[in-house]
Amino acid sequence: METLTVALGDRSYPIHVGQGLIERAELLVLRQPKAAIVSNVTVAPLYLQRLADPLRRAGVEVVEMVLPDGERFKDWQTLNSIFDGLLEQRCERSTTLIALGGGVVGDITGFAAACFQRGIPFIQVPTTLLAQVDSSVGGKTAINHPLGKNMIGAFHQPQLVLTDTDTLNTLPDRELRAGLAEVIKYGLIRDLPFLEWLETNLESLLSREPATLAEAICRSCRNKAEVVVADEREAGERALLNLGHTFGHAIETGVGYGEWLHGEAIAVGSMMAAELSLLMGWIDRHDLLRVERLFQRAGLPVRGPALNVERYLELMQHDKKVLDGKLRLVLLQKLGQAVLSDAAPPAEIIQAIGARSAHA
Amino acid sequence: METLTVALGDRSYPIHVGQGLIERAELLVLRQPKAAIVSNVTVAPLYLQRLADPLRRAGVEVVEMVLPDGERFKDWQTLNSIFDGLLEQRCERSTTLIALGGGVVGDITGFAAACFQRGIPFIQVPTTLLAQVDSSVGGKTAINHPLGKNMIGAFHQPQLVLTDTDTLNTLPDRELRAGLAEVIKYGLIRDLPFLEWLETNLESLLSREPATLAEAICRSCRNKAEVVVADEREAGERALLNLGHTFGHAIETGVGYGEWLHGEAIAVGSMMAAELSLLMGWIDRHDLLRVERLFQRAGLPVRGPALNVERYLELMQHDKKVLDGKLRLVLLQKLGQAVLSDAAPPAEIIQAIGARSAHA
Repeated sequence: METLTVALGDRSYPIHVGQGLIERAELLVLRQPKAAIVSNVTVAPLYLQRLADPLRRAGVEVVEMVLPDGERFKDWQTLNSIFDGLLEQRCERSTTLIALGGGVVGDITGFAAACFQRGIPFIQVPTTLLAQVDSSVGGKTAINHPLGKNMIGAFHQPQLVLTDTDTLNTLPDRELRAGLAEVIKYGLIRDLPFLEWLETNLESLLSREPATLAEAICRSCRNKAEVVVADEREAGERALLNLGHTFGHAIETGVGYGEWLHGEAIAVGSMMAAELSLLMGWIDRHDLLRVERLFQRAGLPVRGPALNVERYLELMQHDKKVLDGKLRLVLLQKLGQAVLSDAAPPAEIIQAIGARSAHA
Repeated sequence: METLTVALGDRSYPIHVGQGLIERAELLVLRQPKAAIVSNVTVAPLYLQRLADPLRRAGVEVVEMVLPDGERFKDWQTLNSIFDGLLEQRCERSTTLIALGGGVVGDITGFAAACFQRGIPFIQVPTTLLAQVDSSVGGKTAINHPLGKNMIGAFHQPQLVLTDTDTLNTLPDRELRAGLAEVIKYGLIRDLPFLEWLETNLESLLSREPATLAEAICRSCRNKAEVVVADEREAGERALLNLGHTFGHAIETGVGYGEWLHGEAIAVGSMMAAELSLLMGWIDRHDLLRVERLFQRAGLPVRGPALNVERYLELMQHDKKVLDGKLRLVLLQKLGQAVLSDAAPPAEIIQAIGARSAHA
């Protein structure tokens, strides 16, 4: 087991990464001997009892809640079903909420923990690669709004992130690949050596070699933790973690939540950002093709759905980084170094989208 | 104009109290020249343009949102209508949300500000006595859940509280009296000289003498600010501000949100707490009657609705102060000194409720 720390003063917390951790109840420090585990219909049959049973044997009262599976359920109605369950089961301000699942479960459960009785403790037990390398770390929680992804949410740090790499054994290939999009992101925005490592080790990751996966997770989490510690509430640097997200969220919202996996949309969004960076003269065509090649090797799309450009621009205007009506995009100054910029002319944004859309 | 400060480090903010402040746009410091004012159908016709016009003349883009009036609309549906409006009007992370109205408008708008894009700035412009002396200060925001009042919410401090005492001129008598319940509360829990001052000046308050009202507001806010600074997130002392609230919330939830005004329920709840404090041997009958007399002179109820005791106990179990299944109640050690206690035996809690219920 490897342990990293997200150093946020009195809100600091550990990330444990290793095999078989889900059954190690002693790693979960609870404020009172009561916990509510939130999972979904896909993950619960595989892992809920493996997490809950050792806790019960340790004397913890465990409440279980199982949500429907999918991004389109990351909405108020599902959130409210968590609140109903918490109140019906007499959960209190000291009860710990445990998110067991991927990014959707983590985001919605974290937001429930942020709001229930104005904030209760919570723990992330991520079971997808995407959640393990990105969404479970850093305290961003949210639900979607029909007009924009992750529009309603809170910053609410977990007490602990428990990453059991064994859970990746049951992850569908498509989801593993989607998770790799966020892994590659760290290389692109701030860690060129990691990008090179990924180019070397991609096949080993795709074949789920445990040590390689663990290293990719730890290196990703270390990058994420460094950024979060420097800028917890996204006043600056943290926005760089959103490479491809302004384009990607437009895809997710535009085609309907859940049609595209988040990581798939981020791969295309990152390609659009790379195209725009090329148009700005910051990276060259060789860099662009190198990025494209890596996404392609990971089995990720490098071209978006048939949304027209006006629809993209309309959806992108709801982005949280918009300031004074002006789009701010994460672009690549060079490979391994991202920058937040409002300098891209609209014509070039349109060109970049067009270059990476099905109906270009 | 008098200015108090809520000293919370980098989240410190001023409370301005005075006449005619609502039209003084220069007092509102905005992060970007865009603001969304949220009010309700009762307050908007009286004050919305008086607040918005000077802002517009100062070059601020002002979005207006008008909610239905009443506690029963402090729910998800109304909250979501605020999110819809903010997104449709292209409000951003730097847009300031301004709550113009009473406690319901302030609580729901504050919660919207806490959650929209994971948190945007907001300003309280309270127009009821209750909001001016209590709910606009301290950053507690919330909506109700069918199973419990203020169950879903956040701590999110305003940038500024702007209290225009002139707005009390249009406040219905019943609402003025309800606000006095929270004013009296400060005297009971921590400020005996203020309690004595209220006994002397109650008629002057009821006849809305401006200087007396302003003094009551400032003394209340000073008490509230001291407690909030000492314990922002209610780990201890702040719970004492909830004298009468565990009983009172049970009344509000039990009879249906909006039937009883919050202050009316708090008056009865405070009498129940006083009865229980008498049973505990902490105050004497003379103290109890003194408290009762003050609430009665303020035109407030001192006896609850016809809910049976079991229903009270069931509703009280959802209180946010419950710990390990045990009720914790704010009681009076003596007049002017409250204490949070789980020592009251169930039989005496039942007796105290019975002594102050319509069907005793």
